[in-house]
Amino acid sequence: MTHNSTPLDPALLDRFVGLVGERHALREAADIEPYVTERRGRYPGVTPLVLRPGSVDEVSRIMKLATETGTAIVPQGGNTGLVGAQVPDRSGTQIVLSLSRLSRIREIDTLSNTATVEAGVILEKLHQAADAAGRLFPLSLGSQGSCEIGGNLSSNAGGTGVLAYGNARELCLGVEVVLPTGEVFDDLRKLKKDNTGYDLKDLFVGAEGTLGVITAAVLKLFPKPKGREAAWVGLSSPEAALELFSRATDQAGSGLTAFELISDMVLGFAVRNVPDTTRPLQSEWPWHVLIEISSGRSAEDARQLMEEVLTSGFEAELVGDAVIAANLAQAGAFWRLRESLSDSQRPEGGSIKHDISVPVVSIPAFIERAGHAVVSICPEARIACFGHMGDGNLHYNISQPAGGDTTAFLDLYPVMNKAVHDIVREMNGSISAEHGIGQMKREELIATTQPIAIDLMRRVKKAFDPAGIMNPGKVI
Amino acid sequence: MTHNSTPLDPALLDRFVGLVGERHALREAADIEPYVTERRGRYPGVTPLVLRPGSVDEVSRIMKLATETGTAIVPQGGNTGLVGAQVPDRSGTQIVLSLSRLSRIREIDTLSNTATVEAGVILEKLHQAADAAGRLFPLSLGSQGSCEIGGNLSSNAGGTGVLAYGNARELCLGVEVVLPTGEVFDDLRKLKKDNTGYDLKDLFVGAEGTLGVITAAVLKLFPKPKGREAAWVGLSSPEAALELFSRATDQAGSGLTAFELISDMVLGFAVRNVPDTTRPLQSEWPWHVLIEISSGRSAEDARQLMEEVLTSGFEAELVGDAVIAANLAQAGAFWRLRESLSDSQRPEGGSIKHDISVPVVSIPAFIERAGHAVVSICPEARIACFGHMGDGNLHYNISQPAGGDTTAFLDLYPVMNKAVHDIVREMNGSISAEHGIGQMKREELIATTQPIAIDLMRRVKKAFDPAGIMNPGKVI
Repeated sequence: MTHNSTPLDPALLDRFVGLVGERHALREAADIEPYVTERRGRYPGVTPLVLRPGSVDEVSRIMKLATETGTAIVPQGGNTGLVGAQVPDRSGTQIVLSLSRLSRIREIDTLSNTATVEAGVILEKLHQAADAAGRLFPLSLGSQGSCEIGGNLSSNAGGTGVLAYGNARELCLGVEVVLPTGEVFDDLRKLKKDNTGYDLKDLFVGAEGTLGVITAAVLKLFPKPKGREAAWVGLSSPEAALELFSRATDQAGSGLTAFELISDMVLGFAVRNVPDTTRPLQSEWPWHVLIEISSGRSAEDARQLMEEVLTSGFEAELVGDAVIAANLAQAGAFWRLRESLSDSQRPEGGSIKHDISVPVVSIPAFIERAGHAVVSICPEARIACFGHMGDGNLHYNISQPAGGDTTAFLDLYPVMNKAVHDIVREMNGSISAEHGIGQMKREELIATTQPIAIDLMRRVKKAFDPAGIMNPGKVI
Repeated sequence: MTHNSTPLDPALLDRFVGLVGERHALREAADIEPYVTERRGRYPGVTPLVLRPGSVDEVSRIMKLATETGTAIVPQGGNTGLVGAQVPDRSGTQIVLSLSRLSRIREIDTLSNTATVEAGVILEKLHQAADAAGRLFPLSLGSQGSCEIGGNLSSNAGGTGVLAYGNARELCLGVEVVLPTGEVFDDLRKLKKDNTGYDLKDLFVGAEGTLGVITAAVLKLFPKPKGREAAWVGLSSPEAALELFSRATDQAGSGLTAFELISDMVLGFAVRNVPDTTRPLQSEWPWHVLIEISSGRSAEDARQLMEEVLTSGFEAELVGDAVIAANLAQAGAFWRLRESLSDSQRPEGGSIKHDISVPVVSIPAFIERAGHAVVSICPEARIACFGHMGDGNLHYNISQPAGGDTTAFLDLYPVMNKAVHDIVREMNGSISAEHGIGQMKREELIATTQPIAIDLMRRVKKAFDPAGIMNPGKVI
């Protein structure tokens, strides 16, 4: 399972280039740069070549040549991943395979409620196409203007729509995958039920390009809600938020389409650092929740349901203060505020990131315990905690002390990670809820996961990619 | 990948018996009988021994000994499967491993909305426990009074709740699996989001016990609907049913919790052959639909939504006649009628079964084309077509001509299967939508699936069960 790790022969590069044509092969450093640097600049990679095939057949021929020559291939979508899964390592021996030119929406079927799309379709484009057909594609991410469906599937993307509609894996009915050998596994079926053998699809989804190259997929569409309401709620504690979540689930059922928890600390970062943001509430609260309720019936129905949830929350003294968005513009502002939280941390200096999940019931205990652990390591650290409470998923990020030394703070990265992740593991949680493993968490995954699980994953990797040419150094 | 196929040595059997104790090991033919004969009597098996372990540790020790001695093991739940996956072959060299004594509901967590249950829990018991906790476990099958969760997961069971809540795989968050070596893969996590490596869980789900033994699982629970309405609709064609389905989806959204299509032929079988059943409508129609609409709001809300759907269907001349169940008893009668359709065919003589799915949009075309194919093979055959239209899944069963020769008719099994399945394949459908592969469809799966898919499945099988002792002769 080791690919060729000597520098790639120019003649070999020429053979790869020949498969897509000079126009779609990038060899100049300036052209390559956007493909080897990811968003946070954490995993700078090196490659002699970026290939941009225009068809599944070209992808197939690239992989065939890669297998024949033991050449490592790094599949890439919109390059928005946060764990370094989509960029090459620094050896210069890995070729980047960009799927961006496979950008066709092959079909929208409003009776089967499916969209058949190629890997390079930008998520927002699919939103628009579904909307135009009177349907909803619910996967919703901060990066939706540039991330691509192939990357969404390879990373099993989550986001804010998971609560009601599921993650990328649950939204996917079928895949088309080019295997390391160039063979095409065509499982592009629009079937909600299909029990013909092992679930191969779900191995490729979330594999971060280490088992094959997803070139297309059949995705589920949903009826477009006729009403959607957003409310911003101030409350005193994560316990109150959990109790409110439980009530909202009881009252709104599947109409509860988002329940996002936001600490006042990170909200403060946003209003300070992100233009055109303001606090939705006049009163001050240590915790906030952004609730979305959707109705298949009508706007009035969604509004009424939201009012019932909030009234019940007030009466139970769970809700401190609340405002329902008066119109689409205000609802949009709430959501932009929520989406700005990631970027709001950068101006505050160094940040130690965690993307964790625990059982929903354990969220308050996690916040309590992790808070103590963080403070015991760095008393002045500022905890920027927010996330998808309804999924048990928090982005538990720690910003450096205000005005402190960034380098000294970032030196705490491993010890802080370990302290937080130890608590996650004790609570039977996950150290990567939605961002994946990539390069970032590979060593930790291997070191801390039960050995039999790692062993099974390695067997899968070896069975699918015996030559070890698919995105080496990622996941496992 | 071949297990020991010589007769099992009595001393070896004694070693297996010693692991569970004489009380929980069955060796007498009369005791063994219920474990080697499945419901339709199609796959009579032979075994010298049925083991009924009482703990995961005992399962683990059984598998360890099985690996050491190359002994084939056939895991079994409630023995309700329809494709012969859960019974041994006729060689007498396979030991049956019944999970029925692992019947504990370990936990119900109403905040995380999860149930942690052992493999031997009977589905209906879980329904009751969830209900008592104010929650819904939506997996709903005709056999729910005797089927067990381990079998539901191993066969990725479907049923009538899939439309709104998903199949068994989608309802499962985590599994505990004893591997062929006896090692325990403990992935019993209550996490809605967990992107730490390959999706091993979904390989075990639906593998029909060929990769490992599922001993426990974490399952999703849902808020209990506050209102549920059932309506029986008569209509003129599958096209009208499809159009009504599309409207009901638009109008009721996630509130549409069942949409079952029923041909008048099979409804006639039911009222003739099953006691205490009557036609819900006075008027006669060639096709019928059982619609269920649920509301998280109230009974009135569900009622109102159902009335809107039916009114709109009448106005569009899709609905010929309809009756909304006046009370719970009548709704129960509609559902019992639906669940009686399977058994209603037996008194009509020989039956050639199909469990197919096609894209929802293709249902009317499938019924049209398959109907011609059936009649061209056997002009007097009676087509008992019914199923989960919203999932694209039909039980397309063919009863022999009235009063005809059963043996002669059943001789048509392969030719009829081929004709129907050829149409399914042309429509990019599945020849096993929910019942699985087992012994019944193994050869056809291997013969008709793209070779690379079979090859990948074989690699998975070999990676997980290199000795080939897990349920040999099933699936792949």
